[in-house]
Amino acid sequence: MTSVSESRTGNASEFTPAFLTHMRELTPLVQCITNTVVQEVAANILLASGASPAMVDHEADAAAFAKVANGVSVNFGTPSSHTYLSIDAAVQQRTEDGTTWVLDPVGLGVAPFRTARVFRALSERPTVVRGNASEVAGLAGMGQGARGIEAVDDVESALPAASKISNEYGSVVAISGPTDAIVTTIDGTTYVSHVEGGSTYMPLVVGTGCSLGALVAGYAGTAHHFLGESATTEEKLTRYHQATVTAHAHFAAAGLRAHELADGPGSFKVHFLDQLHEVTETDLHAINVTTEEL
Amino acid sequence: MTSVSESRTGNASEFTPAFLTHMRELTPLVQCITNTVVQEVAANILLASGASPAMVDHEADAAAFAKVANGVSVNFGTPSSHTYLSIDAAVQQRTEDGTTWVLDPVGLGVAPFRTARVFRALSERPTVVRGNASEVAGLAGMGQGARGIEAVDDVESALPAASKISNEYGSVVAISGPTDAIVTTIDGTTYVSHVEGGSTYMPLVVGTGCSLGALVAGYAGTAHHFLGESATTEEKLTRYHQATVTAHAHFAAAGLRAHELADGPGSFKVHFLDQLHEVTETDLHAINVTTEEL
Amino acid sequence: MTSVSESRTGNASEFTPAFLTHMRELTPLVQCITNTVVQEVAANILLASGASPAMVDHEADAAAFAKVANGVSVNFGTPSSHTYLSIDAAVQQRTEDGTTWVLDPVGLGVAPFRTARVFRALSERPTVVRGNASEVAGLAGMGQGARGIEAVDDVESALPAASKISNEYGSVVAISGPTDAIVTTIDGTTYVSHVEGGSTYMPLVVGTGCSLGALVAGYAGTAHHFLGESATTEEKLTRYHQATVTAHAHFAAAGLRAHELADGPGSFKVHFLDQLHEVTETDLHAINVTTEEL
Repeated sequence: MTSVSESRTGNASEFTPAFLTHMRELTPLVQCITNTVVQEVAANILLASGASPAMVDHEADAAAFAKVANGVSVNFGTPSSHTYLSIDAAVQQRTEDGTTWVLDPVGLGVAPFRTARVFRALSERPTVVRGNASEVAGLAGMGQGARGIEAVDDVESALPAASKISNEYGSVVAISGPTDAIVTTIDGTTYVSHVEGGSTYMPLVVGTGCSLGALVAGYAGTAHHFLGESATTEEKLTRYHQATVTAHAHFAAAGLRAHELADGPGSFKVHFLDQLHEVTETDLHAINVTTEEL
Repeated sequence: MTSVSESRTGNASEFTPAFLTHMRELTPLVQCITNTVVQEVAANILLASGASPAMVDHEADAAAFAKVANGVSVNFGTPSSHTYLSIDAAVQQRTEDGTTWVLDPVGLGVAPFRTARVFRALSERPTVVRGNASEVAGLAGMGQGARGIEAVDDVESALPAASKISNEYGSVVAISGPTDAIVTTIDGTTYVSHVEGGSTYMPLVVGTGCSLGALVAGYAGTAHHFLGESATTEEKLTRYHQATVTAHAHFAAAGLRAHELADGPGSFKVHFLDQLHEVTETDLHAINVTTEEL
Repeated sequence: MTSVSESRTGNASEFTPAFLTHMRELTPLVQCITNTVVQEVAANILLASGASPAMVDHEADAAAFAKVANGVSVNFGTPSSHTYLSIDAAVQQRTEDGTTWVLDPVGLGVAPFRTARVFRALSERPTVVRGNASEVAGLAGMGQGARGIEAVDDVESALPAASKISNEYGSVVAISGPTDAIVTTIDGTTYVSHVEGGSTYMPLVVGTGCSLGALVAGYAGTAHHFLGESATTEEKLTRYHQATVTAHAHFAAAGLRAHELADGPGSFKVHFLDQLHEVTETDLHAINVTTEEL
């Protein structure tokens, strides 16, 4: 087994706040095929964070745009039939090109037609899967199921599910919760990074989770942009793991600062956008991130 | 005539701020089949108030979700053909199950195709109809018509229309305006409750009316949840009337407090979300609610 | 050549802050066929500014509503197939009626199917075209192309493109940027008005550009409302140019004041809505507006 620590990308245990600066310098173009509930907040969160959103989701244009975007976020909240067709087209293009995309299985299990489409997308081997504990558990055929958009499982209980998905589909798997967990199997070893921070107001503002998926797409696209053509699968997975962790730390840092300033969920959202824009590498270094083998 | 005051649900004249606590404890899952303009604010208003939104509006999933949701809000602002199909599916499911749903006839009369579909939904006997005075008057074939989403009739002039709809379709009918009116015919007697409060900024923030419809769906679903299997039609109507009044009082109280803090429509929306979250039973008791026979 | 300065509408060089008061008195009903990302913010910006939004975009109702609306905004951000059909229907109605409509070519060039539809709409001779420099340049077959929703060309470099479009399609052409430019060819002379103001936060809040297009539709519809039946083409173009300039000045004034109050893009949006509502004619007079022949 080649140790990831020997590669030029560092290893999965290395926390990389410098990705924040790389991301802002690239201003990655992120195609969001996402639900109409959260399109606006996702676009504003990407803009505030330093990425460039484009909600291109018409089936006739989805593939053409997926060919040029730095990142693609595929989100299953309130899809229309057109969204489904666009997801198919964009994912096929990204798979052909070997570029990154993020699957956000919102509402898995709450409605049968949607659930079948989520599993179809998972079979295309997303670069990153991001969801709450119930969605991740459900993807692995585990857990207690969901209740609307709320998680009923906790993050730690979903780690085996995340590990199973990472093994089976070669994906980074991120679980959002009070403490986030990012799980990746790299060359036979499964790593889990925990990211602390955020705010209890987050679940009271619709779209924070979906927007984190979009931001992960921006960070993963940035990581891909800076990887050499000859990067190995292990190097890629390491970078994508690091990028996903940094996106979560970006959210955690902004969430912590916004929480202090907020009087409720309305003002939290306003301050959160301000803070996503303000956050620096130094702020990310202050976030508690730990990585260990699972 | 059985007096509603003799039933265990109290009578329609009784104002029930305790429903606020019941609602938050249940965290009712509210399916919103609503327009894309207001999906985000409606979700945020439900979350801030204490309910759990799910904007499930794909025709292939609408009925399955309507089977499990506590409340269903059917809103006719900017519908797509898919929204129309979803409304049909969800309403049919709720009718079969004898569960609650709310009709919000946004834009009645402004466009002929939409208008025909609103009347079709009305014929399915919604639990609650909520709209502005022009929409309610239009539903009863009365009034001066609408102008876009604005009301040109006033609340008091729409009371006969509300009474007619309640008689004909067995619905609670809520009219939003500077002072809201909730009208229900129970066992031959028509009650009207007036709720004072709110803010003149509300008509300057899109989606406040639509979101009130969604919150009414949450409260009506909560009332249904706590009603026994053997509840009579009179008991149900009494509870749904009380629940609708409490939802309006929740809005009125939060609106009053947000108005004091706001510098304009932008900051009003932020404070309104904060205050919907903050409002207590004590705040609801301070709202002026009166009920009389019409 | 008839000098426009001799007409009763004044000439294109005249800045007309009084249009603000006329617009608020009319409360123009503005039909927005726009993308789902910005529907909510566009509605709130129209409401705060003094117009009345209606996002009527179902193909079966689009023409009927376009017949009665004061203004129509046609926006090509994230269109669905239904949006395309609605745009066709509404534009045909406005053309038949000789009433105003605004074309916002969002995302021109980023996706081939959408681009073809934008050019089809342009051929219908919009009253006003409003976009960023890359979109305007692209419409004239010039420029460096776009990158998602961002402009890569600057405003001044797009003036020849704006002039070409105005000559060819008889439109007022507005280019948004750090300093906005409004270009109109009236009876053989091309005028350019520059409007200074706004905020560097604007590009970090999704929908500010799209909403400006909607506000231009409100102002142009107001201008049309107050024009006599016998107005000549030159009088109409002069008024539409003035109206477009005033809409941009309304945005510039509110943007300046909001910028001073903001701590980031989240709070900027909140203050911007408040200030759009607060802005007076006196504030518009303080905006630097210059007009010259191009």
